[in-house]
Amino acid sequence: MVIKEIINRRSVRNYKKREVSDKDLLEIIKAAQFAPTSHDNRGVEFVIVRDQKTKNKIYEIAGQDFMKKAPALVVPIIDTQKTMWPVQDLSVASSHIFLQAEALGLGTVWKNINEKIREPIMELLGIPKDYILVNIIPVGYPNIKKRPHTDQDFSEKKIHYARYGVGK
Amino acid sequence: MVIKEIINRRSVRNYKKREVSDKDLLEIIKAAQFAPTSHDNRGVEFVIVRDQKTKNKIYEIAGQDFMKKAPALVVPIIDTQKTMWPVQDLSVASSHIFLQAEALGLGTVWKNINEKIREPIMELLGIPKDYILVNIIPVGYPNIKKRPHTDQDFSEKKIHYARYGVGK
Repeated sequence: MVIKEIINRRSVRNYKKREVSDKDLLEIIKAAQFAPTSHDNRGVEFVIVRDQKTKNKIYEIAGQDFMKKAPALVVPIIDTQKTMWPVQDLSVASSHIFLQAEALGLGTVWKNINEKIREPIMELLGIPKDYILVNIIPVGYPNIKKRPHTDQDFSEKKIHYARYGVGK
Repeated sequence: MVIKEIINRRSVRNYKKREVSDKDLLEIIKAAQFAPTSHDNRGVEFVIVRDQKTKNKIYEIAGQDFMKKAPALVVPIIDTQKTMWPVQDLSVASSHIFLQAEALGLGTVWKNINEKIREPIMELLGIPKDYILVNIIPVGYPNIKKRPHTDQDFSEKKIHYARYGVGK
């Protein structure tokens, strides 16, 4: 059986106004801190943004209505002096955030932060220059329930045996 | 409660000889295919390596004894023409592999494949030039049971509120 959080996790861009508790946010970040990091650097840190003013400013920089509407934003960051593979470390930690949020009935989405808007976001949040971020993750109760994943999202054609192009 | 697979997942580099079933490998890859991808590109594919000869050759290129001893290797790959963010897509899919393997009692580790050894690995596996891979994931039954994650792996100091450096 595929893990139920993996089956049920869908990207959510539409959140209820209902607040997310501190307890749930801590649990989500705990799950992210249990994620593996390259050479066990454990360097991933997190900025939690809840205040409307900062969320509005993030929206002005990054766009997407849900960035100001989500009750909380979680921003995984890492000191690039602590890891050779910051994008990998941040991505795996983000995946734990998605799944743990799902376990708590919360929705998330990977809002990508590319190099064009990274600097103003970092400046806004006071993140030191040696750090990097790749996304911002809004967290909130989903307004719409999407269907869980099913075998229609699975393709055996994407599996190769010993060599690319060789099927079972 | 943090998801039990997140709590119990640890990097495993020492595997029993016991084979991993095709069914379990398919389940692991299904979980990976349920991972989010940038712009929902769903481009991640997988090479499964089980034969000793290919594992030995991978070991010769990439090193690490466990690469030839693990009963199976899973190699997530993606066509870089299908995604702007291949490293992110592959990393998040890898995270699902780690957690689903844990759910099945299997151990895994992220064996990094950097640019120095990427090309010979791709050639060995016949992977087209437009594709990229960032890791190889051995899968096997753990020889040693590591302790689960606990609060000693969690630091509230890594959480910042609205601005870097601001605690609760």
